[in-house]
Amino acid sequence: MAIAKKILFFGDPGIDDSLALMYSLIDPTFEIVGVVTSYGNVTKDQATANAAYLLQLAGKTNVPVIPGAAQPVQQDEVMFYPEIHGEGIGPIRPPTNMQYQIYPFDTIRLIIEQYGNELIIVDTGRSTTLATAFILYPDHMRMVNAYYIMGGAFFFPGNVTALAEANFFGDPTSSNFILKYAHNLTITPLNVTQYAILTPDLVDAISHNKKNIYAFMLTPVFEYYYEFYKEQYPGIPGAPIHDLLTVMLIKTPDIVDYIYYDAKVIEDVEAKGMSYIDIRPTSQTGKTKIAIHLHYDKFIEEFSKVMLPE
Amino acid sequence: MAIAKKILFFGDPGIDDSLALMYSLIDPTFEIVGVVTSYGNVTKDQATANAAYLLQLAGKTNVPVIPGAAQPVQQDEVMFYPEIHGEGIGPIRPPTNMQYQIYPFDTIRLIIEQYGNELIIVDTGRSTTLATAFILYPDHMRMVNAYYIMGGAFFFPGNVTALAEANFFGDPTSSNFILKYAHNLTITPLNVTQYAILTPDLVDAISHNKKNIYAFMLTPVFEYYYEFYKEQYPGIPGAPIHDLLTVMLIKTPDIVDYIYYDAKVIEDVEAKGMSYIDIRPTSQTGKTKIAIHLHYDKFIEEFSKVMLPE
Amino acid sequence: MAIAKKILFFGDPGIDDSLALMYSLIDPTFEIVGVVTSYGNVTKDQATANAAYLLQLAGKTNVPVIPGAAQPVQQDEVMFYPEIHGEGIGPIRPPTNMQYQIYPFDTIRLIIEQYGNELIIVDTGRSTTLATAFILYPDHMRMVNAYYIMGGAFFFPGNVTALAEANFFGDPTSSNFILKYAHNLTITPLNVTQYAILTPDLVDAISHNKKNIYAFMLTPVFEYYYEFYKEQYPGIPGAPIHDLLTVMLIKTPDIVDYIYYDAKVIEDVEAKGMSYIDIRPTSQTGKTKIAIHLHYDKFIEEFSKVMLPE
Amino acid sequence: MAIAKKILFFGDPGIDDSLALMYSLIDPTFEIVGVVTSYGNVTKDQATANAAYLLQLAGKTNVPVIPGAAQPVQQDEVMFYPEIHGEGIGPIRPPTNMQYQIYPFDTIRLIIEQYGNELIIVDTGRSTTLATAFILYPDHMRMVNAYYIMGGAFFFPGNVTALAEANFFGDPTSSNFILKYAHNLTITPLNVTQYAILTPDLVDAISHNKKNIYAFMLTPVFEYYYEFYKEQYPGIPGAPIHDLLTVMLIKTPDIVDYIYYDAKVIEDVEAKGMSYIDIRPTSQTGKTKIAIHLHYDKFIEEFSKVMLPE
Repeated sequence: MAIAKKILFFGDPGIDDSLALMYSLIDPTFEIVGVVTSYGNVTKDQATANAAYLLQLAGKTNVPVIPGAAQPVQQDEVMFYPEIHGEGIGPIRPPTNMQYQIYPFDTIRLIIEQYGNELIIVDTGRSTTLATAFILYPDHMRMVNAYYIMGGAFFFPGNVTALAEANFFGDPTSSNFILKYAHNLTITPLNVTQYAILTPDLVDAISHNKKNIYAFMLTPVFEYYYEFYKEQYPGIPGAPIHDLLTVMLIKTPDIVDYIYYDAKVIEDVEAKGMSYIDIRPTSQTGKTKIAIHLHYDKFIEEFSKVMLPE
Repeated sequence: MAIAKKILFFGDPGIDDSLALMYSLIDPTFEIVGVVTSYGNVTKDQATANAAYLLQLAGKTNVPVIPGAAQPVQQDEVMFYPEIHGEGIGPIRPPTNMQYQIYPFDTIRLIIEQYGNELIIVDTGRSTTLATAFILYPDHMRMVNAYYIMGGAFFFPGNVTALAEANFFGDPTSSNFILKYAHNLTITPLNVTQYAILTPDLVDAISHNKKNIYAFMLTPVFEYYYEFYKEQYPGIPGAPIHDLLTVMLIKTPDIVDYIYYDAKVIEDVEAKGMSYIDIRPTSQTGKTKIAIHLHYDKFIEEFSKVMLPE
Repeated sequence: MAIAKKILFFGDPGIDDSLALMYSLIDPTFEIVGVVTSYGNVTKDQATANAAYLLQLAGKTNVPVIPGAAQPVQQDEVMFYPEIHGEGIGPIRPPTNMQYQIYPFDTIRLIIEQYGNELIIVDTGRSTTLATAFILYPDHMRMVNAYYIMGGAFFFPGNVTALAEANFFGDPTSSNFILKYAHNLTITPLNVTQYAILTPDLVDAISHNKKNIYAFMLTPVFEYYYEFYKEQYPGIPGAPIHDLLTVMLIKTPDIVDYIYYDAKVIEDVEAKGMSYIDIRPTSQTGKTKIAIHLHYDKFIEEFSKVMLPE
Repeated sequence: MAIAKKILFFGDPGIDDSLALMYSLIDPTFEIVGVVTSYGNVTKDQATANAAYLLQLAGKTNVPVIPGAAQPVQQDEVMFYPEIHGEGIGPIRPPTNMQYQIYPFDTIRLIIEQYGNELIIVDTGRSTTLATAFILYPDHMRMVNAYYIMGGAFFFPGNVTALAEANFFGDPTSSNFILKYAHNLTITPLNVTQYAILTPDLVDAISHNKKNIYAFMLTPVFEYYYEFYKEQYPGIPGAPIHDLLTVMLIKTPDIVDYIYYDAKVIEDVEAKGMSYIDIRPTSQTGKTKIAIHLHYDKFIEEFSKVMLPE
C-alpha cells in the first residue's frame, strides 16, 4: 500500500471544514499530521474545540492541535457565521468536559522539519494564520511539497458580498501574500465548490453506515447547514461542501478541470476580497492551478467511496 | 410614417462610434439633433472633426456639433487608442480644409428645452461630458425621455484591463454618477457588444452598395479596426461594433435580452473601472436595464436593413 | 487712478464669501465682472440668490450671475452648513420677490474672451465649478491673468475633519485638478485664514458707518457666524473670515508671507480633502504661492480702510 | 536599590535602535529580558546578528534573541536603508565567526508568562512583529505592564515620505492594530525624536570613556549615521537618535511633555503611513500618551549620566 499523504490542515471548522476533516481522517490514503485552527466561520476557540473533538472521535489524540490567529490585522470588524456553521459543529457541541492539549505555534515549524517535502498544506479558512507562518518561517514554508487553498470566485458571484468569497474577503492582504509566495499552489474557488453539492439522500445513506465513525452526527450537521443554503439559493438540491472538494483534489485531481493563472485579490474597500485573473485572450498564463470546472459524478463517486466504507 | 426618434448623441468617434453615427444618420427612423464630442477613443478635437465630417457627408450641416470634455477631472493620464481608431476615422481623415461650426456647451440645455420628453440621449464614449451636463443642468436632464449608454462588463473580462471596459474605465466617477442619476437607462456592456461582430463579408457588401453614402469609406475603416481585433482576439471572425449595438436597441430592443439591476463602477485603483451588479440569488433587482445576451441574427438583420438600402 | 482689477468671482456665499464679495464690491480698486455660484456652504440656489442680492444692494445688477454646479461628481453625500452660514446670508434673507437674471455657463467663456489677461479669477468655494470650466474651456482658462483660491490646511488641523478644510474636502478631485492646471495660482489655506479674525468691535464700528451700503446687515450676519465659532473654538476673540483674506491678497499681497510648493489634496477615504506639500529640508519648491503666515495688523488696516469709508 | 525594569525589546537595529539597546544594557535600572528582531532599517538577519553582538559585548549571552518578521504581509516592496544604518551597525560588522543561539517565536509567550505585569514592551521598529504577537497571543499581551513605541509624526513632516515616519510607513496596518489594542501605550513620534540630537562632542566624550563597554565603536557608528543627516537636514548640529529617546522615557518620563489622543495611521496609498490625531479644540482626548515636546537639556543630562559612567 502506498504511503499516506501527510497533511497539515489549516482551517476554521465550521461545517464544511469539518466534513473535509472527517473525510481526511477516515480515508487511509491521508495522514493528518497537525490541525492549525483560526477565527473564520466560527471563533478561534470554537474552531479549536471542534477540531479536537473530530480528532478524538477518530482516536487520533496524538495529532497536534495548534491555535493560530484570533483575528486579522486589519481592523474591519470580524464577522462570524453562526447562522451557517452553528456554535459547535452546526448543532453538535463537543462535550463540555472534553480534555485536549494545544500546541504552540512553533509546532508548525517542527512539523515541516519532520516531514519536509512530503508535507502538503491545506488551508480551508481565512488566510491570516497561513500568512503568519510564511512571515515567521519563510525558509521552512519553501520546503513544503504543495499547497491547496479553498478561496476566491473568478468572474463568479461571491458568497459574502456581490463579488467576494468568504475566505479571501476575511483577510485579503494575507490571501494575496499566499497567492504570491506559496509554490505548487492549487486553489478551489466558488466556481467549482459552489457545485460540490452534497444531497440529503447521500447524507442519509452515510448516517446509516455502521463503519463510519462520524455517522451519528452527519444528519444534524448537514441539515443545519442545508437550511442556510435553501434560504440563500432557493431550489438548490443540496449544500455545497466547499472545503471538502479542496481536500479531495489532493488524491483525485481529475474531479475538476484547471486553468493556470496568477490570481490576485482586491484589498480596496468596495471590491474587497474579490479575486481575479486576466483571462483576456492574449494575456499570460501563470503559476497557480485554479480549479474551474467540476465533474460532479467523479466528486460524488470519490466521496461515497470514502464515506460509505463497506 | 412614425415620427423619427430625436437623438442627442454623445460620443468620441472613433470607429465604432462612427459606425453608430452612420447607422443613425442613414436610418430614417432616427433624427440626430446634436452631437456632443469628447476625449476618449481619440482626442476631443479629432472626435469633433470626425463627427462634423460624417454630418457633412450626410448633408446635415445644420446639426449642432458641441465639443465637451477634453479630459476627465481625475489626474490619471488620459489614454487614447490610435492603434484601434486611427488618427481620423481609422485611416480616413476629414478634409484638412473642412469648415464647420461648433456650438457652445449650453446648446445641450437648449436642445433639451426644445425636444423635452421626446429626446433620447445616447452616450457611446467616456462619461465625463454627460456627467458635466448633469452637474450643470440637473433639472433639464430629468426632462429627457431615456438614456442609452455603452459601457461596462459584468462578470466578463474587460477590454482595457483584466476587469474594466474602456468607457467606464476612462472616468469611473462620472460613470457612477450617470448610473445613479440617469432615469430610464439602458446600458450595453461588453457582455453583449463583444458579440456584436461585423464580418468582412457584410462590410464588403455594404461597400458596394450604391445608395449608402458612407460606402466608399467602409472597407478601409473596418479593416483598420479589424486588424486590432485579430491581434487581440486571435481567430475572431470579425470586429465587435460596440457603440452600434447601443444605438440599435433604441429602435429594435429585442436584439438582446435584459436583466434589471443597480449597476456600479469601482473607482479604486486596482479594479478601477470594473462594473458590477449583485446577482446573488436573493439580491434585489434594480432600475437599470442591462443588455446581457445578444441575438446575433437579429443584430445582423437589422443592421443590414439600414446599411444595405435597396 | 489705476484701472480697477477685473475679478470673476466663484463662490458659495455663505457668510465669509459674502463678506469677501461686499469688500470687493465696495473697494473701487476692484471691478467684479461676474459671479459664478455653486453648492457648498449653502445650496447652489441659495448661493445664487445671495450673490444677486449683494449685487443689487451695490447697484450692480448688470454684473452677470452664473449658476454652476449643484453638487460634485463624487457620490458622497453633499453636506451644507446652515448652522454656520444660515439659510440666507446668515439670518438675512434676500427679499422673496427679488427679481434677477441668471446667465448660462458659457458666459464664463465670453467673459474671458472679453477681458483676457486682465482677468483675475477668485474661487472661495468648492472646486467643482472652476474645474468644470477648465474641463470645458481649457484654452480660455490659460488666458486668465491669475488665480486666487481659498482652500487647504498644511500640517494644520482641518475644519470639517481632523485633517481637511471644507473647500478641498468638498470635491478633492476637482481641487487637485485646479492645483495642477491653474497657473499663477495663490492659495490661502487655514494656516492664515484661521487667524484672519474679525472682532465684534470692528463689526460694530462698520455697522455704524453711514457710507457703507452693507452696514445695516453686518451685525446680524456676523453674530450668526460668530456664534458657531465661539462653540467650536472656545475663547476665540472673533470669527475668521477665510474668503475675505483671499480677495484682499489680490490688492495687498504683503498681508501674508508665502512659500512656494506644489500642493496636493488626498482623495482617498480616510484623509479625504487633506492638503499637503513636501516641506522636508531637501525637497523641491514648486509653482503655487501658498500663504503661510498672516500679519494681522495689516489685515485689519486694509479691511478697515475699505469697509469704513470716510 | 530598586528592582530593575524588565524590558522585552522589539527592534530592527539599525543605528538608533543599537544606541537604544546599548543605553538599556548599560543602565542598571533596566533589565533586558529578550530582544525580538525584525526587518526594517536593515534585514531581519542583520538585525538579529547586530542584537546578538551587542548582547555579547555586554556579556549577556543568556538573553534570548528571537527573530520575528522578515517582511510585512502587504506586498509593497520592502525598503531597507543601508545608506543610513550600514550593513552592520553602521560600518561595524559583528565578527563573521560569531556564534549565537536564536529562540523560537513562542519564547515571547513564555517571557510574558514569567514576568507578567512587571514586563514592559518597547518597539523601536516596524510594527509587523509586535502585531503578530498580538494576533497569536492576545491574552498574554494583555498581561504586559506597558508599551513604548517609536513611531509617527503628527502635523509634522515625515522622514520617508512628505507625510510618513518610517516605522509606521513600513506596515501601517500593523501599526494601527497596535495603536488600537496596546494598553498603557506611550509613543514617541518625530515631533520629539527629531530633536533628540546627539552631537559629535558628546559622542567624542563617550568614546574616550574607559568604563563604557561600547566606547570603541561609538564614533564610527555615529559618524556613519550623522553623514546621512547632514545631507538630508543641512546645518543640523548632530543626529537624532529616535529610538533612544523612546527607551529613556520609561525611566525619565519628564524628558518630554505629553498629550493624550487616539492616534491612527493612514493605510491608503497616497498618505500611507501618516499618523494623525484630532486636535481640533472641541475634539475628544484619548488613551495614548503621545510625546509632543522635548526638553533637550534633560535628554542630554540623562543620556550622559548612563553613557559616561564614572
